[in-house]
Amino acid sequence: MKADLDRLMAERDIDAAVVSGTVTGNPIMYYMTNGARLHLHSVVVKPAGRPAVLACRPMEREEAAKSGLTTVSLAQFDPLRLQEEAGSVLGGMVLLYQKLLEQLEVGGRVAFYGELDQGKSFSFLNELQASTPGLTVVGEYEDSIFDLAQLTKDRSEIERMREVGRRTAAAMQAAIEFVQSHRVKNETLIKDDSCPLTVGDVKRAVLRKLFGLELEDPEGMIFAIGRDAGVPHSAGNADDPLRLGEPIVFDLFPREAGGGYFHDMTRTFSLGYARPEVQETYDQVKLCCERVVSALEVDQLGSTYQNLACDIFEELGHETIRADPQAESGYVHSLGHGVGLEIHSRPRLSGSEINTDRLVPGSVFSIEPGLYYPEKGYGVRLEDLWTVDESGQFHCLTEFPKELVVPMDA
Amino acid sequence: MKADLDRLMAERDIDAAVVSGTVTGNPIMYYMTNGARLHLHSVVVKPAGRPAVLACRPMEREEAAKSGLTTVSLAQFDPLRLQEEAGSVLGGMVLLYQKLLEQLEVGGRVAFYGELDQGKSFSFLNELQASTPGLTVVGEYEDSIFDLAQLTKDRSEIERMREVGRRTAAAMQAAIEFVQSHRVKNETLIKDDSCPLTVGDVKRAVLRKLFGLELEDPEGMIFAIGRDAGVPHSAGNADDPLRLGEPIVFDLFPREAGGGYFHDMTRTFSLGYARPEVQETYDQVKLCCERVVSALEVDQLGSTYQNLACDIFEELGHETIRADPQAESGYVHSLGHGVGLEIHSRPRLSGSEINTDRLVPGSVFSIEPGLYYPEKGYGVRLEDLWTVDESGQFHCLTEFPKELVVPMDA
Repeated sequence: MKADLDRLMAERDIDAAVVSGTVTGNPIMYYMTNGARLHLHSVVVKPAGRPAVLACRPMEREEAAKSGLTTVSLAQFDPLRLQEEAGSVLGGMVLLYQKLLEQLEVGGRVAFYGELDQGKSFSFLNELQASTPGLTVVGEYEDSIFDLAQLTKDRSEIERMREVGRRTAAAMQAAIEFVQSHRVKNETLIKDDSCPLTVGDVKRAVLRKLFGLELEDPEGMIFAIGRDAGVPHSAGNADDPLRLGEPIVFDLFPREAGGGYFHDMTRTFSLGYARPEVQETYDQVKLCCERVVSALEVDQLGSTYQNLACDIFEELGHETIRADPQAESGYVHSLGHGVGLEIHSRPRLSGSEINTDRLVPGSVFSIEPGLYYPEKGYGVRLEDLWTVDESGQFHCLTEFPKELVVPMDA
Repeated sequence: MKADLDRLMAERDIDAAVVSGTVTGNPIMYYMTNGARLHLHSVVVKPAGRPAVLACRPMEREEAAKSGLTTVSLAQFDPLRLQEEAGSVLGGMVLLYQKLLEQLEVGGRVAFYGELDQGKSFSFLNELQASTPGLTVVGEYEDSIFDLAQLTKDRSEIERMREVGRRTAAAMQAAIEFVQSHRVKNETLIKDDSCPLTVGDVKRAVLRKLFGLELEDPEGMIFAIGRDAGVPHSAGNADDPLRLGEPIVFDLFPREAGGGYFHDMTRTFSLGYARPEVQETYDQVKLCCERVVSALEVDQLGSTYQNLACDIFEELGHETIRADPQAESGYVHSLGHGVGLEIHSRPRLSGSEINTDRLVPGSVFSIEPGLYYPEKGYGVRLEDLWTVDESGQFHCLTEFPKELVVPMDA
């Protein structure tokens, strides 16, 4: 959690962390500014052992103040004059950062974070380092201080995420009721205008519900039928009609409206009835969920559970990504991933030897086994979010039943 | 436009452009993949003179295909094995890119783009360059090929942006009608429950309308009253009640739902009546709009118009950012900016000598003069989007009247 930053910086001998960019689409800026709405390039400087400072443009000073951080004005350095002095936008930006870091008495090993164009970052940070005596630019690629700080959430973050989970489950329930409210004709769901109910219709209804629940869907939900359900990240085809007995993978991963924490849950449904092979596969995936959950232990490696899921599915005769990294049917992805201000974060529940992430108190992560048979026209995935508390107890943040068949009136 | 990329690459001696990351929050990836919904790290490689290729994970192959690009699988290189071979995630990523570039027969001067963590980009691109014989990493900071390609839009992009403008104007009209539908008591607007109508209520109503129009508000609208209206990027205080005679700056900049093109427009309103000083300031800002618009010439420098706006406001006795870069009252920002897949893009209408952007056929940009007097409790801004066609004619994409006073029933 955020309180770990000073310890993490000390461990890596980092003298200051600089986070920059706008806030939208920039989770570490959101994290450090507490979601302040900054539309222009702003800079958070967190010196080791001292509070973070937010440097922004004067026209955003009111929004910057909402961060709760001490703010300073970037205009005091007259950025346009610096550009003219340097003869380039890049040179002007280097001078601006030099002046800001100097004012804040920051030097030594300074690590940079935040979402910006990669080519610009390459040029800017190399130039800043080359032209600033005493500055060493640190670019943490793996296990950055923010990766590790965000690997655990504090109580208020967990409470926020629990609440997002409640609302996400309510949206999924509303989706089922919306689907159930339709008539069936020739095995196809029909709207009042006698046209087939489509994936696009359902997604629009879910978006309306999410909106009412003050959630947004920046990444775009998955509502994939039949063969599409057999391809894990196929979002589904808007024109596809809903038909009885066709398995549907519904993966919903909304975020608090206006930016904030994500939830991530998946259910697989079959309307009216289920084909026997789909029901059998569903039961196997559900069994995998249950066996993984009952094996959960605090401080255990995330990779342990990917290996357990592979063991379970291989025993049942399925191909896995462990046996064949290029597999496109069977169990073809990782068991889960951390969730927070990003939809894919830490801890990882992947099987790589490189993955040393552990399930520690304050972690929030998905458990989402699945089996995919696109050539047979189906796939099944079930996903809940889980967290571990300080006493080592695991809690599910996704309170929603796992039932394959959605009853439809005859 | 996109068709310019090969020419721009040739001019800079770039052998290939690499764009990477996910698509959400990554406008250049959106641009190159035509908005394909890729949730995992994917890579577009555009070799000079050859079509772009999209490399993705197999589980996203269906979404990748929607880009219309030729796709290749990243799994063929077995990324987890590469990580283990290299002994680190960074090393594995370097090997993965080396293999991909080798397969696509790409080397020489390779430029990198796309929104990623700046520290990771610094480490990754330096390591990739150091360990790949024959590769020179190019990081374009200013006037990148994508800055310049996106500086002009083709006809289908302009048509999309015109349509977003129509819907944005409809949302603003709906907001006015929503406000007007309320009763007034003691100069304050009142809801059915006799509580004051607040900024938060209006924003929620606008979000509902945007949602119905298939628009989203990723950056968060500005609806700022009184003193807040005097601070350009103050978003407004959700609890503030709406009162007669208090000026409101309403800046609305939504985007096509699910990602895509933005619109950007601002109106200033005063409910029921306007204070004389506010009306006078409003008339001055409107005059500035009109004089700038009547001075527009194709191929002219954007900075010309910022200087014109400063001339106009200084003549009228206002402070400007040109006279004092730290000014916090008067005219305190640039005249405008390009709009497209990003809310702030090119061409710039700022006054810096560094700014050599020109208004060329296919440009889309805002014209948004404003005057700000926070200490007097008001600010005024008016903003429309404009474009230039191939014959050099300017067209306004924001069809909405400019009237300060919103009549309220007595």
